[in-house]
Amino acid sequence: MENLLTTSELTVPEIQEILKCAQAFAEGKEWKPEKQLFLANLFFEPSTRTKCSFEVAERKLGLEVIPFETTTSSVVKGETLYDTIRTLESIGVNGVVIRHKEDNYFQELIGKIKIPVINAGDGCGNHPTQSLLDLLTIKQEFQSFQGLKVSIIGDIRHSRVARSNADALTRLGANVVFSGPKEWFDDSMLQEANYEDVDTAIETSDVVMLLRIQHERHDGSTSWTSEEYHQMYGLTKERERRMKPGSIIMHPAPVNRDVEIADELVECERSRIFKQMENGVFIRMAVLKRSLQSVEGGNVHVNDYQKWPVA
Amino acid sequence: MENLLTTSELTVPEIQEILKCAQAFAEGKEWKPEKQLFLANLFFEPSTRTKCSFEVAERKLGLEVIPFETTTSSVVKGETLYDTIRTLESIGVNGVVIRHKEDNYFQELIGKIKIPVINAGDGCGNHPTQSLLDLLTIKQEFQSFQGLKVSIIGDIRHSRVARSNADALTRLGANVVFSGPKEWFDDSMLQEANYEDVDTAIETSDVVMLLRIQHERHDGSTSWTSEEYHQMYGLTKERERRMKPGSIIMHPAPVNRDVEIADELVECERSRIFKQMENGVFIRMAVLKRSLQSVEGGNVHVNDYQKWPVA
Amino acid sequence: MENLLTTSELTVPEIQEILKCAQAFAEGKEWKPEKQLFLANLFFEPSTRTKCSFEVAERKLGLEVIPFETTTSSVVKGETLYDTIRTLESIGVNGVVIRHKEDNYFQELIGKIKIPVINAGDGCGNHPTQSLLDLLTIKQEFQSFQGLKVSIIGDIRHSRVARSNADALTRLGANVVFSGPKEWFDDSMLQEANYEDVDTAIETSDVVMLLRIQHERHDGSTSWTSEEYHQMYGLTKERERRMKPGSIIMHPAPVNRDVEIADELVECERSRIFKQMENGVFIRMAVLKRSLQSVEGGNVHVNDYQKWPVA
Repeated sequence: MENLLTTSELTVPEIQEILKCAQAFAEGKEWKPEKQLFLANLFFEPSTRTKCSFEVAERKLGLEVIPFETTTSSVVKGETLYDTIRTLESIGVNGVVIRHKEDNYFQELIGKIKIPVINAGDGCGNHPTQSLLDLLTIKQEFQSFQGLKVSIIGDIRHSRVARSNADALTRLGANVVFSGPKEWFDDSMLQEANYEDVDTAIETSDVVMLLRIQHERHDGSTSWTSEEYHQMYGLTKERERRMKPGSIIMHPAPVNRDVEIADELVECERSRIFKQMENGVFIRMAVLKRSLQSVEGGNVHVNDYQKWPVA
Repeated sequence: MENLLTTSELTVPEIQEILKCAQAFAEGKEWKPEKQLFLANLFFEPSTRTKCSFEVAERKLGLEVIPFETTTSSVVKGETLYDTIRTLESIGVNGVVIRHKEDNYFQELIGKIKIPVINAGDGCGNHPTQSLLDLLTIKQEFQSFQGLKVSIIGDIRHSRVARSNADALTRLGANVVFSGPKEWFDDSMLQEANYEDVDTAIETSDVVMLLRIQHERHDGSTSWTSEEYHQMYGLTKERERRMKPGSIIMHPAPVNRDVEIADELVECERSRIFKQMENGVFIRMAVLKRSLQSVEGGNVHVNDYQKWPVA
Repeated sequence: MENLLTTSELTVPEIQEILKCAQAFAEGKEWKPEKQLFLANLFFEPSTRTKCSFEVAERKLGLEVIPFETTTSSVVKGETLYDTIRTLESIGVNGVVIRHKEDNYFQELIGKIKIPVINAGDGCGNHPTQSLLDLLTIKQEFQSFQGLKVSIIGDIRHSRVARSNADALTRLGANVVFSGPKEWFDDSMLQEANYEDVDTAIETSDVVMLLRIQHERHDGSTSWTSEEYHQMYGLTKERERRMKPGSIIMHPAPVNRDVEIADELVECERSRIFKQMENGVFIRMAVLKRSLQSVEGGNVHVNDYQKWPVA
C-alpha cells in the first residue's frame, strides 16, 4: 500500500517509475486488479475536471467507484475525516482519492488507516497528480528534463502546482524560473527559483507554463483589468511569435481566455493544454495502480483491536 | 459519428431507422460496443426522469457513465460549454448527452468537437428523444402513421415536445391538430397545425396527446384553478368515454393528476403513459448506438493542432 | 419478490435465514443474478454512511446502480412517491432502496408496484438493515441470542434502531433492558423493555448498545453539556472497566466521541463499532439477494391496464 500525498515525498526514481507506467498506459497497455476493488472519490472542494479525470482512470482500471456526496456526509455534521475514512475502510473501500481545502488534511489519517490515500489537492499546497501530468507532458516532448528551461508565469503564491513543479523539475535536472507580477512574489518563493521578467522568460524557455489567475483568491489589492494583465504578463500572440523553435505552452486549465493566454493560442501548434488533460488520465491510472496493486480486495475483518476471536 | 440535435433535422428514413432499431431493443435484441466506451450526461437543467432513462439505456449498452455534476463544474465559474466538452473529449469521454436551458446551445459545439452530442432538451425548443419515444409508442399501436389523427392538447407554446412532434408526425403522414386554451396560441403555431376545440379533438382522434401544464413558466395572466382547467381543457372521465374505439392517451409526464387528466385515467386501458417511459429507454439505446457505433474507443491523441510529433 | 419494510414483520426463521445468508457473504460466498439487474437508491433524507454501504453491497452483487438525485427530482415539485417509483419501474429498474423522513412512507406503494422496496429508514420508525446488522454482530460473537442480556442506552424515544432491536432481540430469546436519562422515557417504551440505571446495565450486560445523541432532534428542554451527559450516562473508561468479561460495545455510528462513549474506547478490544459497519454490507447483500433472486430482469411490458395488445 502506497499513499500519494505530495510531489516532494517522491524520489527521482519514483517519479521516473510513475512516468514510465503512465506512458505505457498512454500507449495502450492495460492493467486490472485480479479482484473486484472499490474506490471512493471524496471531493470536499469541488473540481469537476480533476474528479472526472480520476473517474475515467478508475473505470479504465476496472475499479468500482462508490459515489460519495461530501455535501450530505456526516463530515458536515462535524464527524472527523478520520472517522469518515475509517467507515469507508470498514465497508470494504480499498482506497480513497481526496481533495480538501485544508492544508495537509492527510496528516490525521497517515499511520491510522490501512487503505491508501491519493491526494487530489489540499489547500494551497499539494496536487501531485497535476505535477506528474505536467512532467509526463514535458517528457513526451523532450524525452529528458536535463538542461531544459521551464518558466512558470503567474500567481505562484496561490498555485498548488507551481511550487511542486518547481521542486520536481529542479530535481529532475531542469532549470526553472518564475515570472509574473512582482507584487505577487515574496522571498520564500525566490529561494525556489529565480525571477525573470515575462519577455525574457517567454523568449528563452523550452516550456512556458502559465498559471490560472485565481480571481476568487485575490483581495483586490491588485487592480489590473483582464486586458491590462494580458498585455503586461499574458502570453499574447506577439509574445508567442518570439518563443524558441520547438518550445511548448502549458496551462493547468481552466483557462481564462485572453487573460493568461490569447484566445487563439489555446489550441495553437505549441499548445499542450489539452494534451495535459489527456495525460492526466494516464498519470492517475499509474498512481492508482501503484497504490492498489498489492491490495488483496474484498472486505477484511478490520477490527484489529479485539483480542478474542469472532466466530 | 452522428449527433442528435433536433427532430426536424432527421429525415423520414432516418426516423424510421431509429424506430426500427428501438423496436428491436424492445424485443430483447442486445448490442454492446467492442471496446470500453465512456459517456457523460450533462444536465444543466435538472430532469431526474430523462437522466435516469438515459442512464438505464447507457448501462444496457455496457457504457461507462462518468458522473458530471453541473452545479460544481467550471461552467458555473464562466467556462464556456465548448471548453467543458473539449475537456471531456481530452480525458477520453466518447460522447455527451446534454440538457441545457439555452435554445440551441449546441451551435457553439458543432464542427469543433469530435465526439457526438445527443440533445436531451434545450430551452423551449427541441427534445428529440422525447419525440422519438412518442413516435415509437404510436407506431407500436397502429403500425403506421399514415392517415392517423393526432391531437396535441395544452400549453403548446411552452412545449419542447409539441412542435417537434407536430412536424415529425406530419412528415410521417399523420394529421395533427392542436387544442387547449386559445389564449395560449399564436399565429406561428397555427401554421404548424390547425386548432380544434377540445371536445372535437378528443372525440375524433386516434391519439390524444396531453401536455403538462408548466406552472413555473406562466406569468399569472391566466387565472384558472386546476379544477377549472381540468373541466375546460382536461381529459375528464366524461370526455374519455367519448373517445374513438382503439384510440390511446399519451402524456410526457410528470402528470398533474386531475389537471391535464383525471387521476383514474392515468393508468386506464387507453393510457400509454407508462409505456412511453418504457419506450424511452429503447429509443435512447437506439440513438446512442447510432452515435457510438463508429467510435473506436480509448483515448486518442487529441492535439491535432500541433505540427510536430510528440514522442 | 420480497419487500423489506420493518424488522417486526420478519418472523424469527426469516431473521435467522437472513443472518445465515449474510454470514455466508462475510465468509466470501458470492452470488450474482443471472441477468443484468438495475437498482436505484432513493435517499430523500441524506445518509452517506448507509448509502455507501448499500452501494458496496449492490456492486458486490454485480447490480447496475442508477444514480437518483432526490434534490432535483420531480418529487420536489410535488410528484407523489408512487408516480416516481412507477416511473423507475417503467424504465426498467428492478428494485428500490428508499430512505424517507415520513413514517411508513411505503404504505402508498405496497400492492401497487411490482418491484421490491427495501426500507433504508423511515422517520423515527424503522431501519431494518441496521437492526439486522446489529443482530449479525451479536450472533457472530455469542453464536446464540438465548439468555443474553442486552442493554440499550440513550435516546430511545428518537431511535429508529432501539425499538426494532428490542423487539427482535426479545423474540430471539435475549433479555433487553433500556437505560439513559429517565426524562427521555415514556410509558409506551417501558412496555417493550425494563428500565435499569446506567451502572447496573453496563455492569451486567453481555452487549452494551449505545445510541447516538440526536442533537438535531432535541428541543432544548434537556440542558446537559456533552461532558455532563458523558459522566452521567456515557460509557466512560471507568464504567468500561466494570463490564463483564467477554462483553461487547456497540454503537450505530456516527459516534459523538466523549459523549456517548469515551474517545479511547471507540476502537478498544470490546468495541464492535467498525465490525458493525463491516457487517452492514453483508446484511444488505443478503437482503438484496432475498428481494431480487426471483426477478427475471430486463424491461417488461408494464402497462397491464391495457386490454388490447400492443404490436
